[in-house]
Amino acid sequence: NDKLKIFSLNSNEPLAMEVAEQIGRPLGKSSVKRFSDGEVQINIEESIRGCDVFVIQSTSNPVNENLMELLIMLDALKRASARTINVVMPYYGYARQDRKARSREPITAKLVADLLTTAGAHRVIAIDLHAPQIQGFFNIPIDHLVAEPLLTDYFLQKGFSGDELVIVSPDHGGVTRARKMADRMKAPIAIIDKRRPRPNVAEVMSIVGKVDGKIAILIDDIIDTAGTITVAANALIESGAKEVYACCTHPVLSGPAIERIDNSKIKELVITNTIILSPDKHSDKIKQVSIANLLGNAIVRVFEEKSVSTLFD
Amino acid sequence: NDKLKIFSLNSNEPLAMEVAEQIGRPLGKSSVKRFSDGEVQINIEESIRGCDVFVIQSTSNPVNENLMELLIMLDALKRASARTINVVMPYYGYARQDRKARSREPITAKLVADLLTTAGAHRVIAIDLHAPQIQGFFNIPIDHLVAEPLLTDYFLQKGFSGDELVIVSPDHGGVTRARKMADRMKAPIAIIDKRRPRPNVAEVMSIVGKVDGKIAILIDDIIDTAGTITVAANALIESGAKEVYACCTHPVLSGPAIERIDNSKIKELVITNTIILSPDKHSDKIKQVSIANLLGNAIVRVFEEKSVSTLFD
Ligand SMILES: Nc1ncnc2c1ncn2[C@@H]1O[C@H](COP(=O)(O)O)[C@@H](O)[C@H]1O
Ligand SMILES: Nc1ncnc2c1ncn2[C@@H]1O[C@H](COP(=O)(O)O)[C@@H](O)[C@H]1O
Repeated sequence: NDKLKIFSLNSNEPLAMEVAEQIGRPLGKSSVKRFSDGEVQINIEESIRGCDVFVIQSTSNPVNENLMELLIMLDALKRASARTINVVMPYYGYARQDRKARSREPITAKLVADLLTTAGAHRVIAIDLHAPQIQGFFNIPIDHLVAEPLLTDYFLQKGFSGDELVIVSPDHGGVTRARKMADRMKAPIAIIDKRRPRPNVAEVMSIVGKVDGKIAILIDDIIDTAGTITVAANALIESGAKEVYACCTHPVLSGPAIERIDNSKIKELVITNTIILSPDKHSDKIKQVSIANLLGNAIVRVFEEKSVSTLFD
Repeated sequence: NDKLKIFSLNSNEPLAMEVAEQIGRPLGKSSVKRFSDGEVQINIEESIRGCDVFVIQSTSNPVNENLMELLIMLDALKRASARTINVVMPYYGYARQDRKARSREPITAKLVADLLTTAGAHRVIAIDLHAPQIQGFFNIPIDHLVAEPLLTDYFLQKGFSGDELVIVSPDHGGVTRARKMADRMKAPIAIIDKRRPRPNVAEVMSIVGKVDGKIAILIDDIIDTAGTITVAANALIESGAKEVYACCTHPVLSGPAIERIDNSKIKELVITNTIILSPDKHSDKIKQVSIANLLGNAIVRVFEEKSVSTLFD
């Protein structure tokens, strides 16, 4: 399998190294630096002619830098005669800009899909896209993996299961995800139900489902500023939940996120490593599970032209 | 002409304001900010349905931020039913990555052309592209303006002309530009001639043309770290030039540029405002001439569907 090449860019090298190790292939030799004026300078330092190339890059913060690195790498790979160019995007930046919520807004998630294709991507492997509809933004194959089973396993290994639990979706959009986790844990679900009675009137929050006396596990795809999740956690405790855990696939954790989590009623926050945690984002409450195996398996199956769908959920 | 709309993004708002004023139209209302996680958030705050829209953005440092702002704006304009979307790029970032100089390099200047087109550009107006061949990277119309006449005018207004001068190209690639300036100033030209006798041997520099006793004017398209231009200036003085002036269209001025210019034999450096000079890039030697009129004229002529070619040189 020396036709299988894995390259890492700068967003998440530790993850790329873990994936490469798991597959048993060295990372491809390349350097991604900046010219004096800030322009991206890429050198691919080994032949990739006729190879199936997998480029691992999360378009996390700094999203524009990471995205441009990726696009320029794709251009270089294309010109260097790669047989196929596969983009592995553990975190897909701009996924939340996936529709026109107001007039004259961009749909940047679609723009990113077009940019990747234009630059030379033949296939994309992504994890927990904010909306599964983003798959339809592509005209190339996209494999959409889910991290929920990994998060669930973490809690199962803690001995959690059954009726002592309740799996909670922090909003209406995440109920399907909560339902899947609940099935696997043989637990019931609950929903944080927010509504605005009239425009320009404060949101009213209530909890649909029984949480009193239970261990609540909040599950979301992205935790960004952590406003939603920490407010939800505190509401669960007020409604009688014994303990609150939270988990998510993509730890964006921008702005006040860490402070909010530390000051919240959340006991533990379980995240994956789709996004690298910078050292300033440290909290003792955070536990990380790795998606390296999931990605490694997907890469090998794509390379061997086998179905990836068993990894879907 | 209320169907003509001009929008500015964040790279060079003073220039955009000057252009709008010159045309006699207000800048279009929009806001370009960042979400908490660094993603670009664009709001176009007035209808542009059926309008001919001109977006002014230089892809100068931070190049990836500025380019992504531009691409996302184009996506928003396209979805908001602009009639035509015209990209005014006073400085075209990544222009120097215009060919594969070594194996497995990207051609990022071509990638940028493709990205602009994919995002929705119908036409591009650029100034002094590093290589005029970049025009051929586009399949949409591109108007390529030149700033040399503005730089020349600056020196003519100083009373410089004729045989007391010599116009110097700092490398072989810039001779055509130096020739044009020399014609307009009725002056002779000279060339800084660099060659590498053998690989891995230091470059040898000599001057082709007479400079002894003359006022030398160095002209280049981009001054980046200012290594080339300051070495050339000092060589001209050593070869007997009385005084050395330098000029360029695009003042990238990264890294040690300002220090090098201040410590060099260059008497004045004349630049345009295609790129905004950040306050830390101050030097008493720098004089700026504005390209706002040039751009304003080009925009109005494109809007009125008149030829722009009279502005070409
Ligand atoms: N990076 C971002 N940070 C915060 N909000 C965003 C971001 N990108 C998009 N949005 C907004 O989030 C909303 C989508 O979130 P959701 O309702 O959870 O799908 C849209 O109204 C977007 O305008
Ligand atoms: N931003 C940049 N800063 C410095 N050098 C660059 C930059 N972009 C491209 N180059 C290199 O500059 C060379 C092109 O410059 P030139 O020979 O003047 O056309 C190419 O070999 C590029 O690798």
